[in-house]
Amino acid sequence: MIIDCHGHYTTEPAGLGVFRDRQLAGLVDATRRPTTTNLGITDDEIRQSLEGAQLKLQRERGTDVTIFSPRASGMAHHVGTAQTSAEWTRICNDLIHRVCTLYPRNFVGVCQLPQSPGVEPRRCGEELERCVTELGFIGCNLNPDPSGGYWRDPPLSDRWWYPLYEKMVDLDVPAMIHVSSSCNPCFHATGAHYINADTSAFMQFLTSDLFRDFPTLKFIIPHGGGAVPYHWGRYRGLAQDMKRPPLSEHLLNNVFFDTCVYHLPGIELLTKVIPIDNILFASEMVGAVRGVDPQTGHNYDDTARYLHQVAALSDQDRCKIFEGNARKVYGRLNSYLERRERLSPVESTA
Amino acid sequence: MIIDCHGHYTTEPAGLGVFRDRQLAGLVDATRRPTTTNLGITDDEIRQSLEGAQLKLQRERGTDVTIFSPRASGMAHHVGTAQTSAEWTRICNDLIHRVCTLYPRNFVGVCQLPQSPGVEPRRCGEELERCVTELGFIGCNLNPDPSGGYWRDPPLSDRWWYPLYEKMVDLDVPAMIHVSSSCNPCFHATGAHYINADTSAFMQFLTSDLFRDFPTLKFIIPHGGGAVPYHWGRYRGLAQDMKRPPLSEHLLNNVFFDTCVYHLPGIELLTKVIPIDNILFASEMVGAVRGVDPQTGHNYDDTARYLHQVAALSDQDRCKIFEGNARKVYGRLNSYLERRERLSPVESTA
Repeated sequence: MIIDCHGHYTTEPAGLGVFRDRQLAGLVDATRRPTTTNLGITDDEIRQSLEGAQLKLQRERGTDVTIFSPRASGMAHHVGTAQTSAEWTRICNDLIHRVCTLYPRNFVGVCQLPQSPGVEPRRCGEELERCVTELGFIGCNLNPDPSGGYWRDPPLSDRWWYPLYEKMVDLDVPAMIHVSSSCNPCFHATGAHYINADTSAFMQFLTSDLFRDFPTLKFIIPHGGGAVPYHWGRYRGLAQDMKRPPLSEHLLNNVFFDTCVYHLPGIELLTKVIPIDNILFASEMVGAVRGVDPQTGHNYDDTARYLHQVAALSDQDRCKIFEGNARKVYGRLNSYLERRERLSPVESTA
Repeated sequence: MIIDCHGHYTTEPAGLGVFRDRQLAGLVDATRRPTTTNLGITDDEIRQSLEGAQLKLQRERGTDVTIFSPRASGMAHHVGTAQTSAEWTRICNDLIHRVCTLYPRNFVGVCQLPQSPGVEPRRCGEELERCVTELGFIGCNLNPDPSGGYWRDPPLSDRWWYPLYEKMVDLDVPAMIHVSSSCNPCFHATGAHYINADTSAFMQFLTSDLFRDFPTLKFIIPHGGGAVPYHWGRYRGLAQDMKRPPLSEHLLNNVFFDTCVYHLPGIELLTKVIPIDNILFASEMVGAVRGVDPQTGHNYDDTARYLHQVAALSDQDRCKIFEGNARKVYGRLNSYLERRERLSPVESTA
């Protein structure tokens, strides 16, 4: 089985963008505020938005299930107020729920959180609980920088975040660390801000004792862990200089990396330096890079191909990366997969 | 010949720190302002500060020359005013000059710049010119974020920076992109801020036409290029999606990476994906990571060892990485090396 732990709904029907424009217009001109949260999006529009994109790619690449969340750059927690974020988040999560309901064999949900700069993360607990207990979601995307590139909230190791972590532990769901768009002109979103956030989060964990306080808390650092595996010697050395335990003890029961690294040498390095038990298959499709690599003739983001090309991986290693590790990290995935087993194949094509 | 393009004076005699404390104390209590810029540091103190550290490591590792600059985290452009930065910068550069005068066979200088948040980079031109024409320096360290982790100045592609680039081109000196310490609690300096800055700078170049305006401008991105080589497929793909030229044409006549990557798999990846002509040997010693890697029994930062272990490199490749590429990137290095040839070996041990 192939489980892709990192997919975003980047092909949303136009109705979502129309609502968002009205919502933000309403912040500066109340007469333009949308009068309903009904997006007017039909099931057929949702089907169309996925059939030629995520579902087509799932079929072509042999992916069984994608752990699916709202467009990351769309979260834009830095825009508007906490109320803006709360309303927008609920709408985006409900749309993911519709996707998962239409295609229960193909998608399982992960939610966006109603974060807002300077607003306590504890206020995200209610929406997380709704998504997990009512909508059947199995995780959340946690934005370590709701300011959108100015990094004004406390680091992830700060007690500021603890009430949200308590809720995650209670609900048995992990978070993928994922920033949104950047409003800082120094940071290109997918080329710099995303990768920097991954690296920064890892270092925030490294310099803290967060996982002594939360031994079962789990994070996935996407985009292959930012710069971390490439600089694994630096991180091992920094931990050592700081008299921290070896990274394997200090962080690797709680921190996992996805495989969104878009060339074979990167995947080779990732699978060489990071323990296999800490790597989860992901492609981020349809995502940051959409083209075909002229060097291979295949899509950059067809990361399963690279994993199949790494000679050093055993079949057992690949099983862990494609399936087993996701089952361990997402505590609620197994029961979803059991329900999925009982679905008729007809339902798989909605 | 082995040229290390990235060494900082991280073992400065105590007199430098004493001055700095007084300088900063003077900002809040004018009576504590230092009355002289004479640090009271003797030549013997300088010799002592280097003999057991950089010089010892040069001998042990077979490094002939280190391109040497003030401690990067010490620049702290975000502290105090532009005048604070100007005074401090001049003092730090003068100390590097003393090192290079005492050990002319071992060190050649690179200067810190008197940057300050929100202050036009054109104001750095005078100090750069002084260091190059009067002190014999061959490059500068350019801080892309003088705010120390809040990234409030324009990106490196902005015309804000152009007058400084004009001066660099006139003087035929490159810049290493190097942030200083971080005053943002989200960013550990050497574990996150440094690496993020490298990645961000590369992406600022990628999304701009800077090198159309400055075809001979040259930058070294340290720490192995941040996350860039590990995500080379992502960057090739992003450039392609944005209809930019291939990275080899678009950036690689102007942008170079050092080898401060502290484990063999990282160096293998770097030398596999980045053209050999764009890689410059460096160790950043004595720098960010000072320990011995228990996996190898050698210092993490002994990067020459990794380069010798990469089987895919030819002797010619290693010559380029250890010497030839530095001679190309640092336009003034050849004439320094010619002068160095004429020095008697006695002078090499000061």
